[in-house]
Amino acid sequence: MDFTLKHTATGSKARAGTLNTDHGRIETPIFMPVGTAGSVKGIHKKDLKEDIGAQIILGNTYHLYLRPGMDIIERAGGLHKFNGWDGPILTDSGGYQVFSLGAMRKLSEEGAKFQSHIDGSRHLFTPESVIDIQRIIGADIMMAFDECTPGDADFDYAKKSLQLTQRWLERCVNQMQKTKPLYGHSQSLFPIVQGAVYPELREQAARHVTTIPADGYAIGGLSVGESEADMYAMIEVVNPILPIDKPRYLMGVGTPVNILEAIDRGVDMFDCVMPTRNGRNGMLFTRNGVINIRNKKWADDFSPVDPDGTSFVDQNYTKAFLRHLIVANEMLGAQIASHHNLAFYLWLVKEARRQILADNFKSWKEEMVVKLAQRL
Amino acid sequence: MDFTLKHTATGSKARAGTLNTDHGRIETPIFMPVGTAGSVKGIHKKDLKEDIGAQIILGNTYHLYLRPGMDIIERAGGLHKFNGWDGPILTDSGGYQVFSLGAMRKLSEEGAKFQSHIDGSRHLFTPESVIDIQRIIGADIMMAFDECTPGDADFDYAKKSLQLTQRWLERCVNQMQKTKPLYGHSQSLFPIVQGAVYPELREQAARHVTTIPADGYAIGGLSVGESEADMYAMIEVVNPILPIDKPRYLMGVGTPVNILEAIDRGVDMFDCVMPTRNGRNGMLFTRNGVINIRNKKWADDFSPVDPDGTSFVDQNYTKAFLRHLIVANEMLGAQIASHHNLAFYLWLVKEARRQILADNFKSWKEEMVVKLAQRL
Repeated sequence: MDFTLKHTATGSKARAGTLNTDHGRIETPIFMPVGTAGSVKGIHKKDLKEDIGAQIILGNTYHLYLRPGMDIIERAGGLHKFNGWDGPILTDSGGYQVFSLGAMRKLSEEGAKFQSHIDGSRHLFTPESVIDIQRIIGADIMMAFDECTPGDADFDYAKKSLQLTQRWLERCVNQMQKTKPLYGHSQSLFPIVQGAVYPELREQAARHVTTIPADGYAIGGLSVGESEADMYAMIEVVNPILPIDKPRYLMGVGTPVNILEAIDRGVDMFDCVMPTRNGRNGMLFTRNGVINIRNKKWADDFSPVDPDGTSFVDQNYTKAFLRHLIVANEMLGAQIASHHNLAFYLWLVKEARRQILADNFKSWKEEMVVKLAQRL
Repeated sequence: MDFTLKHTATGSKARAGTLNTDHGRIETPIFMPVGTAGSVKGIHKKDLKEDIGAQIILGNTYHLYLRPGMDIIERAGGLHKFNGWDGPILTDSGGYQVFSLGAMRKLSEEGAKFQSHIDGSRHLFTPESVIDIQRIIGADIMMAFDECTPGDADFDYAKKSLQLTQRWLERCVNQMQKTKPLYGHSQSLFPIVQGAVYPELREQAARHVTTIPADGYAIGGLSVGESEADMYAMIEVVNPILPIDKPRYLMGVGTPVNILEAIDRGVDMFDCVMPTRNGRNGMLFTRNGVINIRNKKWADDFSPVDPDGTSFVDQNYTKAFLRHLIVANEMLGAQIASHHNLAFYLWLVKEARRQILADNFKSWKEEMVVKLAQRL
């Protein structure tokens, strides 16, 4: 995997780059749709590629490990063969999902013991096992096993948590070196910067990960309950320390405004369930603001879902029809809204890239963040 | 609307015809996907038309009347404009759904009083109001308001029920004559033959409807609990009485085998929720038999969903992946299975037509009904 930085915008840290993987090229900044169980919810993969323009998708290690399980994934020949997506895939480490289980998991130096949310069965994730699992999944980009420190953690907890993440990172790196890709394409491991909302810890975390040679670096533990100001401040602490010639991935973020603000601060890669999850609930993101399609005002609005939209769903369906489908709990409503939102997110990062390359990013961003935050 | 009978197969009553509507031509025999609330569940309309090959879809008057309601449909300019489907549409009369409400509806000479399954609100359907509603929906083919006699009705009940259906038919026809299409395209009314499983009643019902000049005739009240032998016997009673030069629509039927047997007995049009409803539960219909994709045996079957299938989903996804999606309750699983089944049903009637025109229907059908009934 190699990353080429094409341009950094004037008056901003926003970057345009190219990330080459064995499954194809990714133009950054990029948004990565989340395919939790190997499928982006409600979206056929041909639409994902051809209509939405996704360049890389995510899989969740925790979910895939539990179902269908590693035996099936390995016999399929990895996740690419299993789900048929032939572009790049990134997997998380399972850490975030395991920590979200709350009382159903227990942390120790060794790793995280947890109970399946499906059948209550007991499992153990360790830095080593999580690398082995991601080898079997065959992700182009694998994530290190970390503790996702809660947004409200006090300094002492955050510090101890970061130290655990750092020891686990070293075990992940060792396991990477001891193992090999299974399916003939190369796999990269991204370390994750934690440290909650404490600049001192974030700085130390960023310095620590740069001691590990890697193809890219991630910023984790943000958008987990802290304020947006804290989130942006942490990105500003971390990014100047990370190597300039490697991609930076802000995990699990966020709204369209969050994404533009993070691009402005030098982030290259994003993922979030918001476009699909909020879409299923009837929230549409557009370049003019946010639409809650359940609102009565759309009931007789026979204009297209999004006249400016790039996807076929934007032109083929009306707001009134989409509202009807969402209110009536029709599956097609969730499909259309998810599809629109993903196409919008992909348009947003593509347009951001265009503006960066045209050296117009900063003023474009300032205009956009006002419009994007409006409620229509 | 006009129907042209192209050919009747040798040694069978199977017919190939062409039905012209203001929204396009339908080649019979035809299967009509059901779009209960104006959308075929889980299927984008472009896929329905371009990939699945649907030529006409159904809307349910009961559902559309309750939600989004006639005000919205009328302001949209009818259902074609509201849902964007520009091909022919058939609507049922709401009778079947109302009678399915059981204790929540009450029948009288005037019509059917019922409570909404959504909010318990009280409504009245009469033969006249149901015609008015279907005028507003703007269906190319409207159905008469009838009582769908239960499959286990005794002779006396079935006889009285049929007489009510006949009186209601006359009121529907009167209301048709008093009203006009609202959107510039013509609308036809199909009378419905009831009579439960009593040949005497079915014969009388068939003779009665033929006294009404109509563009087509429907056979209702079958596949509602009676045996398959009774269903086929009733079709054999009714079809020889119906005009040879008008299409015959068997309502709500059925399995692929039911459809071929009914085509063999001279039926031209079909609708059923089975391909989508059973698809959502993991049942796939193929030309070699029925697959329950939840079965453990498919967990590691990495062959395409249906190697003989005509749809993109058949070739783009494997059985193992589809099983995983259905077991994990992923929306995409329901989409793939529904899509496959609809494409299969449309293939089945298209192939039946080809065999009729090639005068090979009877022997092809005999082979197919054995294969279709197998469990894989």
